[in-house]
Amino acid sequence: MDSVGVKLLLIRSSPFAMSCALALRQKGVKFEEVPENLSARSDLLLRSNPVYKQVPVLIHNGKAVSQSLVILEYIEEAWPPSDTTPSLLPGSAYDRSLSRFWADFINKKFIETGLKLMKRFGEEHATARKEIVEQFITLEEGMRAIGSVGPYFLGQKMSLADLALVPLVPWFTSFEALGDLKFPGPEQCGRMHEWLNAMREDPDVVASVPTADWLLNYTLNFREYIKKHYPGGL
Amino acid sequence: MDSVGVKLLLIRSSPFAMSCALALRQKGVKFEEVPENLSARSDLLLRSNPVYKQVPVLIHNGKAVSQSLVILEYIEEAWPPSDTTPSLLPGSAYDRSLSRFWADFINKKFIETGLKLMKRFGEEHATARKEIVEQFITLEEGMRAIGSVGPYFLGQKMSLADLALVPLVPWFTSFEALGDLKFPGPEQCGRMHEWLNAMREDPDVVASVPTADWLLNYTLNFREYIKKHYPGGL
Repeated sequence: MDSVGVKLLLIRSSPFAMSCALALRQKGVKFEEVPENLSARSDLLLRSNPVYKQVPVLIHNGKAVSQSLVILEYIEEAWPPSDTTPSLLPGSAYDRSLSRFWADFINKKFIETGLKLMKRFGEEHATARKEIVEQFITLEEGMRAIGSVGPYFLGQKMSLADLALVPLVPWFTSFEALGDLKFPGPEQCGRMHEWLNAMREDPDVVASVPTADWLLNYTLNFREYIKKHYPGGL
Repeated sequence: MDSVGVKLLLIRSSPFAMSCALALRQKGVKFEEVPENLSARSDLLLRSNPVYKQVPVLIHNGKAVSQSLVILEYIEEAWPPSDTTPSLLPGSAYDRSLSRFWADFINKKFIETGLKLMKRFGEEHATARKEIVEQFITLEEGMRAIGSVGPYFLGQKMSLADLALVPLVPWFTSFEALGDLKFPGPEQCGRMHEWLNAMREDPDVVASVPTADWLLNYTLNFREYIKKHYPGGL
């Protein structure tokens, strides 16, 4: 493991990895992207994350940090907020808890449903299509309950909740193109639309997520693979 | 929702709730335990945690915080470390990431296996029995990799990793009594044994976890219920 420099072990299709890349860009931290191949994991990955053997892994000062929310908290603490370094969490304990709660919801529940859209067929796929629309409404209600004026999840500044949700933006586009997702309209999910539009214009966001074209192609290939090898769904 | 006082909505069998109760006791925060009934949830619970409708929920200054790791971080920040108030996280960003990583592992992977021991039968139960022993060894290796001298997970002070693991102590006793768990011996899991012995003697721990007898009775009743209503496992 190198003792200097910042490395992020990642795969481009991992929303968890893209959250960490975006957090580093937000903080202005220079880092090396180290692409991993999950069908032939590198020795560095196996040594750095022996429990899960998964990306993302952040390597800083020769030490490895795993699990995306843990990495995000680490980035916040290792490069603490200053006049020139933004915070990834709001100021008050309660607002911080809201940001962490929604980041956790997105990473656990929302991505779980997205994976079902990728890997399941028939009735299970139909259930996931309904579930993801309900979850968009849950997110909308969450934003509204906070009473934030946006454009970010909690208000004027990007925080953990945005970092968790942003990498899913091109997935929404890809799922819509495939007919798997009908995004609720602005009359029902106005804050979500405002949020989406702001994210699509942010240069750090654009640099940290795959393009919709790349992802659409990835999704089509992935599904072909699943259909061929796991016809009952994975 | 009351505007003053600290309340913790809980059920006694929830390890997540007991982690939060222990964290409050560690901080010296006086709080009211509000027992919930998950077959007839209170209006306060439904209003406070509309997304999951689950315990634990911490109510402080009339505001509700949900999800146990989010609550633990909130407790750390709302009652920050001082000369008389202990910290629930170590000082360095890297050590904090280790504590968060292991708390997350325990809450996700370890408790998932424990639930399989409770709810599954036959081959799935046998697989869970093997899995939990492997996970004890993973925890032992985690503690050893940190190089801490104990007795706590990261060294001389209790932190998030201990708070996540402590509520499982009486479950280990209960599972052992039922023949579902053969805890690896001190020669294989010496640090885990040292940790267990220290936790069993800590008065705050004793006050925050169910007794082994109560839990054994709970486990037996729960399994009878599952066997009767879900003979294929739940």
